[in-house]
Amino acid sequence: MLFNCVTIIGPGLMGGSLGMALRHRKLAREVLGVARRAETLEAAATVGAVDRATVDLRAAVAGADLIVVATPVSAIVPSLRRAAPYIPAGCLVTDMGSVKAPVVAEAEECVPPCASFVGGHPMCGSEESGPRAARPDLYEGAVWAITPSANTASHAVDRLAELAMAVGAKPLVLPPELHDSAVASASHLPHVAAAALALAVAAASAGNPFVERLCSTGYRDTTRVAAGPAEMWRDILLANRDALLAALGRYSEWFEHLREAVEAGDGESITALLAHAAQARRACLGGKE
Amino acid sequence: MLFNCVTIIGPGLMGGSLGMALRHRKLAREVLGVARRAETLEAAATVGAVDRATVDLRAAVAGADLIVVATPVSAIVPSLRRAAPYIPAGCLVTDMGSVKAPVVAEAEECVPPCASFVGGHPMCGSEESGPRAARPDLYEGAVWAITPSANTASHAVDRLAELAMAVGAKPLVLPPELHDSAVASASHLPHVAAAALALAVAAASAGNPFVERLCSTGYRDTTRVAAGPAEMWRDILLANRDALLAALGRYSEWFEHLREAVEAGDGESITALLAHAAQARRACLGGKE
Repeated sequence: MLFNCVTIIGPGLMGGSLGMALRHRKLAREVLGVARRAETLEAAATVGAVDRATVDLRAAVAGADLIVVATPVSAIVPSLRRAAPYIPAGCLVTDMGSVKAPVVAEAEECVPPCASFVGGHPMCGSEESGPRAARPDLYEGAVWAITPSANTASHAVDRLAELAMAVGAKPLVLPPELHDSAVASASHLPHVAAAALALAVAAASAGNPFVERLCSTGYRDTTRVAAGPAEMWRDILLANRDALLAALGRYSEWFEHLREAVEAGDGESITALLAHAAQARRACLGGKE
Repeated sequence: MLFNCVTIIGPGLMGGSLGMALRHRKLAREVLGVARRAETLEAAATVGAVDRATVDLRAAVAGADLIVVATPVSAIVPSLRRAAPYIPAGCLVTDMGSVKAPVVAEAEECVPPCASFVGGHPMCGSEESGPRAARPDLYEGAVWAITPSANTASHAVDRLAELAMAVGAKPLVLPPELHDSAVASASHLPHVAAAALALAVAAASAGNPFVERLCSTGYRDTTRVAAGPAEMWRDILLANRDALLAALGRYSEWFEHLREAVEAGDGESITALLAHAAQARRACLGGKE
């Protein structure tokens, strides 16, 4: 047993999958789920993501030695503010937000000094959401970013890394700011590019009834992430606005290089760019595929 | 038996998969593979894509009642020109090129009047290539575009549709020009967007060592098509240049709408655009997923 009582605030896809992994691997004596919507709680209990589900934040938090805030990014700090008065001494508190610097700074202000906060971001998930999409193996093989600040206790980092490894993930410790600039390119930019693609194809489709019929696996995979929940992603994109704008600008430059080469009929440049892209992708994914 | 002797010029991923499907389903008495490289021929024979492999184009073509040109786009017309003198009367000739209008126009000039040419483009494949990537079920459930011109004999269209259905595909008859404008958005634009993404992430990675570590399934799927062969895609992009430039322009506009909304911190517009993208994707894929 790694923990006695784990409280998951927001047992959706990410939180629910963690609950399942903790329960399947017998890593906690009890897993509690807290949410505001009865529907979420019922689903979390039904799929076996938690031992017990409750709307009573105070009671759920009071007995915890690990609190995981797994809500959408914009709800993390408000949830922590509400929970703060009841967080017990010695409790480890973490979150799963996709953006870290602003969340970590505010979370450190809410969490009482008798407890320890350390930010986290498991690099997994899917375009689905909610506890019904949760799976006990979601964390297996995933990188789990852990983002201590200058104020973070080192034992909190170690404990979160232990949790990550216990559910099959690979902990990666890095500063919140470097995390945010990295995910702007690795995750938030792909989301914007995928959404723009779905929108452009829909616009083309209005003028040519065959576009949709000819969309195949290339379109499907290239746009997959754009199927994710719009409000959750709005929050992520806005919370990481500056780093994202830099990534979007970089993308536009490369897109324009490709466009110019096509316009000029410059086969050599097109081949060089496409070959570089294929090679960069291989290098990036390394042994991940 | 649908055909007596089928000759596949270029038995790679697409041609080799067709050969396998024909053989598994016993749709032809004999499947011949023709290629210039001994390596390709050997692999095609080893994986069971053809009954017999040869470098002798003349002999392979002379006895065929179906010729399928499955080479990269830029090699289709040159292959047909070499084969033309030996194409027997009554033979059905088709291709699998990703761009149709220019190919169909030139192919009609090469193929002798005693035979029938009709352009085709099965909407399947993968980022892999060559006979070793071939699979007998590649065509199952795929749309097979058939692009007759004003000169195409209707029996040629019917016969190609029969072949498509016999290997599990869904024939879709449309004019070459509408095909090209549709695939510019459905397939060629996603390729350019994916390549630009791989290039932009690689550039970001040079300044932040954590970018690659944090690339996950979103990056992997969004860039998958960019792993395809650079030269094959250069030919496709150039052959469909005008329609592609229109699609790239449309994409840039939507990308810019999203970028502006992020820059302005306009959450409502971001949500509206992302929700529209998710809904458009669902509508486009319909029952395809």
